[in-house]
Amino acid sequence: MNHINHQFRLVSRPVGAAKRSDFHYTEETLRDPAEGEVLVKVLYISLDPAMRGWMNESKASYIPPVGIGEVMRALAVGRVIASNNPAFAVGDHVNGMLGVQEYAYSNGQGLTKVDPKAAPLPVYLGTLGMPGLTAYFGLLDAGQPKAGDTVVVSGAAGAVGAVVGQIAKIKGARVVGIAGGADKCRYLVDELGFDAAIDYKNEDVQKALQQQCPQGVDVYFDNVGGDILDAVLTCLAHGARIVICGAISQYNNTTPVKGPANYLALLVKRATMKGIMVSDYYPRAGEAIRDMAGWLMAGKLKTREDVVDGLHTFPETFQKLFSGENNGKLVLKVADA
Amino acid sequence: MNHINHQFRLVSRPVGAAKRSDFHYTEETLRDPAEGEVLVKVLYISLDPAMRGWMNESKASYIPPVGIGEVMRALAVGRVIASNNPAFAVGDHVNGMLGVQEYAYSNGQGLTKVDPKAAPLPVYLGTLGMPGLTAYFGLLDAGQPKAGDTVVVSGAAGAVGAVVGQIAKIKGARVVGIAGGADKCRYLVDELGFDAAIDYKNEDVQKALQQQCPQGVDVYFDNVGGDILDAVLTCLAHGARIVICGAISQYNNTTPVKGPANYLALLVKRATMKGIMVSDYYPRAGEAIRDMAGWLMAGKLKTREDVVDGLHTFPETFQKLFSGENNGKLVLKVADA
Repeated sequence: MNHINHQFRLVSRPVGAAKRSDFHYTEETLRDPAEGEVLVKVLYISLDPAMRGWMNESKASYIPPVGIGEVMRALAVGRVIASNNPAFAVGDHVNGMLGVQEYAYSNGQGLTKVDPKAAPLPVYLGTLGMPGLTAYFGLLDAGQPKAGDTVVVSGAAGAVGAVVGQIAKIKGARVVGIAGGADKCRYLVDELGFDAAIDYKNEDVQKALQQQCPQGVDVYFDNVGGDILDAVLTCLAHGARIVICGAISQYNNTTPVKGPANYLALLVKRATMKGIMVSDYYPRAGEAIRDMAGWLMAGKLKTREDVVDGLHTFPETFQKLFSGENNGKLVLKVADA
Repeated sequence: MNHINHQFRLVSRPVGAAKRSDFHYTEETLRDPAEGEVLVKVLYISLDPAMRGWMNESKASYIPPVGIGEVMRALAVGRVIASNNPAFAVGDHVNGMLGVQEYAYSNGQGLTKVDPKAAPLPVYLGTLGMPGLTAYFGLLDAGQPKAGDTVVVSGAAGAVGAVVGQIAKIKGARVVGIAGGADKCRYLVDELGFDAAIDYKNEDVQKALQQQCPQGVDVYFDNVGGDILDAVLTCLAHGARIVICGAISQYNNTTPVKGPANYLALLVKRATMKGIMVSDYYPRAGEAIRDMAGWLMAGKLKTREDVVDGLHTFPETFQKLFSGENNGKLVLKVADA
């Protein structure tokens, strides 16, 4: 082993948006995997909004923060290039928390094999990965949509939102997506079959919701928080279910999170707001993957990845999530194979 | 009929706290009840936080606002003094939306008979009335406390909160009440049997919660909103249920409602926030009244009414709810019998 591994290590806790100066681009020489370890060549790295939270010094989160000096945590897919673990062979493609780097060691825990012939590798980071499971269980388990319901999803052109909306359509709901920009809105309606899309950058979201949801919103799947959550709260149907999946509008805040000022609508509308974490559903991942792979094959579920080339672009590419510049699941390509 | 009926009529929509100048104290001469009507002499008027909301010009509430010039809406108990409705006889005691006045006409809709021998009349406005039903169904149906759970209730010395805490004790929970002032806190622990009480006027609520709820809060019954809701959100147990019953800290706001900035704890803790309205449970009122009357008789449920004498004191007495000066269910006494 003589290769060099390039890595992005967190060196300061970002204030507001994460900047290049919050990381060091370091290198280290590879060694042979220790007993029980595999060495994985990282091919595609998943860039997810939750990563911004992992950069904070927070005691109360669901996962410890990334330590100062540590390689930035990230899901990724890669190929086993050396194995000292009988469960994995050289050549296996695997999915796991491999980090923002070119090579990763793993003891095999949390590593799952994926089949590059069944779907392109980036899809395992999106629709057939963590975002897809989040969408599937968050919508079906917490949102409980019924045929004929009106389902609204924010961040609708993102990795989670696009799957939420399409599953809601499959289940017979009327689906309204909220996204930023005319291109994304066209994509939702023309490509993914949403019933309507609201461009929050150019429309009054509350007025548009009143027009598009005359019977009120039965299920709201929230990826963004902030003003859009407050707007949807004014348009709830009786007995509405709000699924709190994320709040990307608030992750770069340097001021306190904006709580939903209209939360007393929960009382007036006898509505429920429920937080979900995808990790709770990992034991049931099989049923979701089976359904979603079936829908993908049948053409009922479409998937789009925004693949950006080059590990070294990580800090700037990550920022696309917050500016809304990504089109579909944002993936950083490190190597071809 | 030659009596004079004195009434408080809403003449302006209050800005902030309701003031005497927002009402006119008017009089009108009584007439005989029309066909199907009864005439009720009002004895005790219920003063409830929700009345503040009814004074606002709001389109989206659960009940229309009180119109300008109309008698202020209020629940009350009284005695039928003339009847042109076969369902009610002179001498019957009744409970209903009789308004802030000395006499009320009713067509009988929403009027229920109460037995002054079974319980003092003010109790029918508190523990055996709307606040008691709110506590019973809000806690048991939406909060779903299990034996051994930690249940926290705010506004704990109020008409709803005191019943919530006592029912939670009956169901085997550890109960922590949040109230304002040492007297109320002593009352909760010494008289009502709460396990602990937190004086929000003199303690750091978040720190006190951490001390009193080392396993986290399984059920939070929120009557107050604002900073206390935010403090409880930092102390949730996994799978916690938050019952949104009211937000008295926000009702006199002249600025927008303060939304719960810590609502993303719902996500981290896989918690649920659910709004309730007591009117949804009126069809099941019988089961609640049966249980609670039994607990009252058995001494397991204690009730306290703060009875203030004099209809003319209405604007100032109503304000006691918001300053927290009331001790128990606040009732305005209009006449003895």
